[in-house]
Amino acid sequence: MTPQRTLFHTFDAPKDAIALDCGQTLTPYTVAYQTWGKLNADRSNAILIFHALSGDAHVAGAHEDGRTEGWWDLMVGPGCAFDTDRFFIICANVLGGCKGSTGPGSTNPATRQPYGTDFPVITINDMVRAQHPLLRVLGIEKLCAVTGGSMGGMLALAFIQLYPEMAERAIVLASAATNHAQAIAWNKIGRHAIMDDPLWREGHYYDSPDGPPRNGLALARMIGHVTYISEGAMDRKFGRKLQSADVESFSFGVDYAVESYLAHQGQSFYERFDANSYLYITRAIDYFDFAAKTGGDLTAAFAQTRARLRFFSYDADWLYSPERNEAMTAAARAAGREAVHHKIHAPLGHDAFLVQKEPQTELIREFLR
Amino acid sequence: MTPQRTLFHTFDAPKDAIALDCGQTLTPYTVAYQTWGKLNADRSNAILIFHALSGDAHVAGAHEDGRTEGWWDLMVGPGCAFDTDRFFIICANVLGGCKGSTGPGSTNPATRQPYGTDFPVITINDMVRAQHPLLRVLGIEKLCAVTGGSMGGMLALAFIQLYPEMAERAIVLASAATNHAQAIAWNKIGRHAIMDDPLWREGHYYDSPDGPPRNGLALARMIGHVTYISEGAMDRKFGRKLQSADVESFSFGVDYAVESYLAHQGQSFYERFDANSYLYITRAIDYFDFAAKTGGDLTAAFAQTRARLRFFSYDADWLYSPERNEAMTAAARAAGREAVHHKIHAPLGHDAFLVQKEPQTELIREFLR
Repeated sequence: MTPQRTLFHTFDAPKDAIALDCGQTLTPYTVAYQTWGKLNADRSNAILIFHALSGDAHVAGAHEDGRTEGWWDLMVGPGCAFDTDRFFIICANVLGGCKGSTGPGSTNPATRQPYGTDFPVITINDMVRAQHPLLRVLGIEKLCAVTGGSMGGMLALAFIQLYPEMAERAIVLASAATNHAQAIAWNKIGRHAIMDDPLWREGHYYDSPDGPPRNGLALARMIGHVTYISEGAMDRKFGRKLQSADVESFSFGVDYAVESYLAHQGQSFYERFDANSYLYITRAIDYFDFAAKTGGDLTAAFAQTRARLRFFSYDADWLYSPERNEAMTAAARAAGREAVHHKIHAPLGHDAFLVQKEPQTELIREFLR
Repeated sequence: MTPQRTLFHTFDAPKDAIALDCGQTLTPYTVAYQTWGKLNADRSNAILIFHALSGDAHVAGAHEDGRTEGWWDLMVGPGCAFDTDRFFIICANVLGGCKGSTGPGSTNPATRQPYGTDFPVITINDMVRAQHPLLRVLGIEKLCAVTGGSMGGMLALAFIQLYPEMAERAIVLASAATNHAQAIAWNKIGRHAIMDDPLWREGHYYDSPDGPPRNGLALARMIGHVTYISEGAMDRKFGRKLQSADVESFSFGVDYAVESYLAHQGQSFYERFDANSYLYITRAIDYFDFAAKTGGDLTAAFAQTRARLRFFSYDADWLYSPERNEAMTAAARAAGREAVHHKIHAPLGHDAFLVQKEPQTELIREFLR
């Protein structure tokens, strides 16, 4: 594939203003996106991919910025599950993000300063609303499929609920119909870490000489990261291996390999992510509830959708468990939807949706045939 | 029972100096403890209870400080599993703690200032070494049993390894033979939260006008607390219940009941616990490895012990799982020890050892008969 370029579209027409769930109206806003492959003559081969919490529009292939890998190279490309020789693939950075789309780090037109926490609190539905007009720009009236893992799966579910006639299929990986209490707790603690960091400055740190709240964001990422892999995978990968010395240091520094790994995860994250975006995106995840408009009735919620459904869960995923996916599938079927749940053996846990290729590749190819 | 008074014994004789695992020698040091019941004529009815991370010597009954409950009232008292009418029960605050025994908040005799992080990094074995001479003070040569939950179980295991002839029985609840990688990760993140708090001041905050690192300690406690209860228990207790309003606030404040609960857990903890003690105690837990001296061979480690063993695990405990307890029991049996594993149905998870009375009461009474 040729190197990918990030494209930007700014929506400022009154008809594109987003009526946010919080009651505010957002306009203008920019959506950063990339595409792969070609839209066919009858415009029937488009697939919209939604990224997870820390993702971006750069799903696959070399990138103009010199980075060589997309976050889903394994699944998107020639001959892959999402075959760029057959499909026209689109992925946009979410509203509230920090990878080109409008978010808390963007300039607030009212003040000409970065929004910071003056950016409105948004929802998963709002993120989907922001991407909807992009399809019009690209000349797409109907998608062959929407898909995504983790938060990306929630976005796919929100899409088929908000625009039931616009997607033939939804492929939802390592996700859930709503954020459960423990997952809300982890998000809350992560936000606490950021907001407790004195460098956060109530969210207005973009011009601060001290820089952004790195420590808080690193902590939040470390917490998240532990939830993305299974206890067994951590045992196998690290166990009680010491990082460098032969014996414990009897200090509070890094003794164990798992400590070094976590520190690296935290540090590499604050070099590429905005702390305020972490607040906004995790809050959107907390607020997500596919059955909110049907009084908690998941079957009634699926009854309002049209897409054919495939749910992929990963047996060692303790963040969004197979059991939750099984319940979601049962609700969709009770609503008369075509829904299949594939429970994948994946010792890694939640992050398996990002790094494991089989057997989901063949199952997805079959579903898209 | 009559109100309990905390007793203190300071060990300053050269023979009581502790040769710590880190290589330093600790003397003098004070052990704060409480006792219940009466030592019988042949001194054969003594039971030593070890507390968990945030516990103290006040296990049961009314306390002179006006608090009405001990942390294990359910299990220790007249007619309870640990029957104070039959047994002489002892519990001491651990070395490194902040409830009366010597720890980082104690005065360093060399400087007449609080130790802070000049206190040596200690181990579970060191904590046990500090309590050993207390038994001599109390006139006890052999214990009927040692017991404890979570870290307390590790202390019980360390006791029967360091002093194999001194305990007839060990009752180990919700614990493990070593701290696994994910548990090390949580402890690491908790310490990070404390040490990132500017009020921590490299551990020398005791005289600071700004006070201790409350935010960091609260964060550490919140993280720990989520690991103490199961995902299902959080679902049943909180689910997605809102705390007060009917709708989401579209803010980063408290919307969900689980957020309010966590905030309360964090706040109530920093009112009663020292942040440096949290660092020292979690590091000791990380370092614990029952099989360290036998090259990782758990069976060889149990071969050096003598006590009859009972392991209690709780089926929804995801911190120290039933599987780890089953493996520990199998290793003990392979070493020729009398070992039984009771896997208790306890939907709450790890904290069930603190708050659930049956069926472990009858099983423990039977074992102590």
